[in-house]
Amino acid sequence: MTKNRLEAFSDGVFAIIITILVLELKIPHDSTFSALRPLLPVFLTYVLSFVFLAIYWNNHHHMLHTVHRVNGRILWANMHLLFWLSLIPFTTGWMGENHFASEPTAVYGMVLLMAAIAYTILTMEIVSHHGPDSVLAAAIGKDVKGKISIVGYVAAIALAFVDQWFSDAIYVAIALLWLVPDKRIEKRLDEH
Amino acid sequence: MTKNRLEAFSDGVFAIIITILVLELKIPHDSTFSALRPLLPVFLTYVLSFVFLAIYWNNHHHMLHTVHRVNGRILWANMHLLFWLSLIPFTTGWMGENHFASEPTAVYGMVLLMAAIAYTILTMEIVSHHGPDSVLAAAIGKDVKGKISIVGYVAAIALAFVDQWFSDAIYVAIALLWLVPDKRIEKRLDEH
Amino acid sequence: MTKNRLEAFSDGVFAIIITILVLELKIPHDSTFSALRPLLPVFLTYVLSFVFLAIYWNNHHHMLHTVHRVNGRILWANMHLLFWLSLIPFTTGWMGENHFASEPTAVYGMVLLMAAIAYTILTMEIVSHHGPDSVLAAAIGKDVKGKISIVGYVAAIALAFVDQWFSDAIYVAIALLWLVPDKRIEKRLDEH
Amino acid sequence: MTKNRLEAFSDGVFAIIITILVLELKIPHDSTFSALRPLLPVFLTYVLSFVFLAIYWNNHHHMLHTVHRVNGRILWANMHLLFWLSLIPFTTGWMGENHFASEPTAVYGMVLLMAAIAYTILTMEIVSHHGPDSVLAAAIGKDVKGKISIVGYVAAIALAFVDQWFSDAIYVAIALLWLVPDKRIEKRLDEH
Repeated sequence: MTKNRLEAFSDGVFAIIITILVLELKIPHDSTFSALRPLLPVFLTYVLSFVFLAIYWNNHHHMLHTVHRVNGRILWANMHLLFWLSLIPFTTGWMGENHFASEPTAVYGMVLLMAAIAYTILTMEIVSHHGPDSVLAAAIGKDVKGKISIVGYVAAIALAFVDQWFSDAIYVAIALLWLVPDKRIEKRLDEH
Repeated sequence: MTKNRLEAFSDGVFAIIITILVLELKIPHDSTFSALRPLLPVFLTYVLSFVFLAIYWNNHHHMLHTVHRVNGRILWANMHLLFWLSLIPFTTGWMGENHFASEPTAVYGMVLLMAAIAYTILTMEIVSHHGPDSVLAAAIGKDVKGKISIVGYVAAIALAFVDQWFSDAIYVAIALLWLVPDKRIEKRLDEH
Repeated sequence: MTKNRLEAFSDGVFAIIITILVLELKIPHDSTFSALRPLLPVFLTYVLSFVFLAIYWNNHHHMLHTVHRVNGRILWANMHLLFWLSLIPFTTGWMGENHFASEPTAVYGMVLLMAAIAYTILTMEIVSHHGPDSVLAAAIGKDVKGKISIVGYVAAIALAFVDQWFSDAIYVAIALLWLVPDKRIEKRLDEH
Repeated sequence: MTKNRLEAFSDGVFAIIITILVLELKIPHDSTFSALRPLLPVFLTYVLSFVFLAIYWNNHHHMLHTVHRVNGRILWANMHLLFWLSLIPFTTGWMGENHFASEPTAVYGMVLLMAAIAYTILTMEIVSHHGPDSVLAAAIGKDVKGKISIVGYVAAIALAFVDQWFSDAIYVAIALLWLVPDKRIEKRLDEH
């Protein structure tokens, strides 16, 4: 079974999720710059979620590049990842409209946490299908970034009830951690 | 005629339908967890419809994998399937917002029933175009799952006027029945 | 220059237009069947527009199948077609919500007329790029269906101010005329 | 690393942005032609933004056609471009609903300016990855059109506070400048 349609379908879903995010930026009725000011938190959450989705697309792109065979388990692990990512426009809008209040900030982190777990499951399914000696398995290694992210999301969810700005700082830090493209895979691929 | 554009167009429609489903999850104005509670039925119907659409995409993917030639009848049978699937966001939203009331639950099943019939027609068109000795024809066999589903939808529509929870239980049962990827086709393909 | 991205982009736009059409079907607040009755005209226009867009996609698919080379003029003729098609959800919604009133019915026909003209221009650009002896040129022949459609749209626009049901009957008749897949091209292709 | 998924993902985002633009054309409740009159500025901005996005897609298509290798920097430069383009439906709607008032007209230009800068960065990344002797580097040459556009946008933003019709005239002029497909690249490619 080829991976082409899996990529095409995922690309479609990624493209739509990343684009409907912007629908949360409601057009103000007033035509002055000050009418844009209340939109600032919505805009900032838009940028943050855009970056997270771009990171997921980027890593998804890199990972599937190493994939040769796709089976039913991989298809469903991929659907599971897309499910959690599809909730990001909702959590983004809720956090943005409520100016980063505690509960929406925690829920934003929960969906990111579930997406990170889903991505880990997808990776494991692909590795188990291709064997521990495959390019991907070697490239992932101990997946330090993935583990840091999951710990970070758990901390951010808890800290949202202390002071949500800790949580937002953690989200930004995790995004920055991943903004560097996945050198691990790129490097290994160059060697092959 | 190649099947590539048929797949690409269908993937696009699947990706959009599955993503606009989430637009029914209206962002609450309040920032508390209790503001999320009224969204629970909408969320549950979202999960159910996401799973149904994922199942359709998965089976569509498997079936078209076996297809070599596409003709006008297959193109239209595919459009017919996409038409009924495109109504799922509407029926999902109606059922979710009305907390699984009888009529929306019945209409939800009617659209699923029409989609299941459309899928059966598409399968028959592909089989008749490829011949009764093709891989697909052999893999489909007696299509027990498809027949059970159609009987299940008819029962669910009728039972919605007795107690709609019967209907919802049937929808969940049918989804679980299909969640197992279509081993019939996968197995036959492995032999070729 | 290859035609693949032109097809991929067009497929994306077709898929999105055909799917956002359904967003005009606003979910009723009431949970009874009678709450669906006011939606009937919107649903009927949805079916009509879905069929028109499916016809366009089908014919676009057939036509591009015969295309070998793409140039800037073809890219823009294609964009021009997509522009008019992108207005169909608007005219569909306007006609449906106003229960087929005269003006919306006329505007619906105007957009279909412009799309038909844009399709004719696209065909001419492709034929002129491939030469009068190409498969496509031979397959199009005198383009009787295309000419009948354009005359039909003009008549429907005028008749909308006499009695809009004439116009709607013409729209349905044109859709039925095209529902038959383009045998002209399919037949010629089989000979090659 | 292949460029196919980069194209597919970008095509998806382009297709969705260009199509959700039309959602700003809100369906009037009245069924008379006069009900369409208030929509005229929204429609005109729709046409303008449609043309800009079509130009970007066209040029993106031409540019990626010359690309052989993709790296992480190119992926992110492309994401950066898509980010700014994704804001066009918002700025289009704001400018259209406020009948080309000064501030929305300036913000419309700012987003176009940022998109033009992002496109320049993407071009530079691709050229630097392929070398100064590549087809693309030769084809771009001094990029006169790109430089004129950036100067034009800056002027339009400033002039919006004098008289916004100057700005709108500049936007139309830049669109016309680009409507001619990028002969530079087409010509060079023909020579190879």
